[in-house]
Amino acid sequence: MNKKLNLLLFSGEYDKSLAALILANSAKELDLDVTIFCAFWGLYLIRKPDSLSSEDKSVYEQMFGAVTPKGPTDLPLSNMNYGGLGKKMLLHMMKDDDAPLLEDFLNGALKKNVTFYACKLSVEVMGLTQAELLDPVEIVDAKTYLKDALTSDIQLFI
Amino acid sequence: MNKKLNLLLFSGEYDKSLAALILANSAKELDLDVTIFCAFWGLYLIRKPDSLSSEDKSVYEQMFGAVTPKGPTDLPLSNMNYGGLGKKMLLHMMKDDDAPLLEDFLNGALKKNVTFYACKLSVEVMGLTQAELLDPVEIVDAKTYLKDALTSDIQLFI
Amino acid sequence: MNKKLNLLLFSGEYDKSLAALILANSAKELDLDVTIFCAFWGLYLIRKPDSLSSEDKSVYEQMFGAVTPKGPTDLPLSNMNYGGLGKKMLLHMMKDDDAPLLEDFLNGALKKNVTFYACKLSVEVMGLTQAELLDPVEIVDAKTYLKDALTSDIQLFI
Repeated sequence: MNKKLNLLLFSGEYDKSLAALILANSAKELDLDVTIFCAFWGLYLIRKPDSLSSEDKSVYEQMFGAVTPKGPTDLPLSNMNYGGLGKKMLLHMMKDDDAPLLEDFLNGALKKNVTFYACKLSVEVMGLTQAELLDPVEIVDAKTYLKDALTSDIQLFI
Repeated sequence: MNKKLNLLLFSGEYDKSLAALILANSAKELDLDVTIFCAFWGLYLIRKPDSLSSEDKSVYEQMFGAVTPKGPTDLPLSNMNYGGLGKKMLLHMMKDDDAPLLEDFLNGALKKNVTFYACKLSVEVMGLTQAELLDPVEIVDAKTYLKDALTSDIQLFI
Repeated sequence: MNKKLNLLLFSGEYDKSLAALILANSAKELDLDVTIFCAFWGLYLIRKPDSLSSEDKSVYEQMFGAVTPKGPTDLPLSNMNYGGLGKKMLLHMMKDDDAPLLEDFLNGALKKNVTFYACKLSVEVMGLTQAELLDPVEIVDAKTYLKDALTSDIQLFI
């Protein structure tokens, strides 16, 4: 049986999502099984950029949906974001080094069959729907996360 | 012997504390033993809301005690707090979904006998006293945390 | 064989670095092996305070190098930093309690042979060089981190 990496992605920032996905891709290259459980702000990584829906949403949920990041390219930095300037600098520096960008790592992880879970309670509170999340994402509860984490060799909260 | 979840709660924000306590409650429902070691800002979660003491405190400790959050309802969001507006929106969204609030999850964890530790060094530096912390909280050092973590099946830093 | 603690230090803040190094020092006193893998902002902890180099750097890398923290004493707080005021208060409170400062814990960890790794990709993107990092630091990739984490008893993302 393969060794297993389990990530709880709570943060919704570009740099932290990058860290999670670099670990996920590297782990897959080492033949580990990988699960990423996205909760709270971590849901923004796996949000479809083009499918903002207002169906069956409360006013708060619509407002929240409108002001929050829509997918990987839209995420801010956790540090030195300076209204987007810091992130622009970082992206330039990544391109200068031919480093893949966040969306490349996300696509890599999807192709390599990393398992993406979305936290049920977070999805409900934020008023997101399955249709607004990337297709392979499965909505599961905290107990499903814990059972997966219990059988993993590395567990990290990011 | 039960499987074990060990959380190091370093952050003092509403959403991260919520994540920690949802995991703790869910783990208890799965019959895991759960320890939460609160350090630095994480101490604000287990601070008694009504027992601000200035006895034996330096001026800095008194100032720090006065400007920092007093218990679970007083914690800000880690993201989009907007001076409290974002948190208000989140609380509305949680109520709309009949999701329990942070204080409910905290009470649940206390009832289910989650073990709460407070980091000795953090307590001393911040000038807190045992009387200012919730009653079942035990003040222990980093070595006690590490020994508990070594015998746990999942360890997370939140 | 010794038990093992593995830390992924992603954050570049004074308080979070302090948490990492307190754990590292305490773990060493319990005879654990300790690895700290510094990535992204975590690299600022192991940056030599006095060796800012602009050799072979792009303009972005030079700007980034100039505005970011240079070593342990230069790191901000993750919370209540208030342009440095909160940190000053915390340092006063630590001195009042005769608590060691971040640089003391860093020196302790170096003396106790904690293994310090720097994330290769982060070093390249930020345009840092080996000469700008503390001498015992080895630059390794994410796979090396994962292999070390797989053989560890506690893994935390800080």
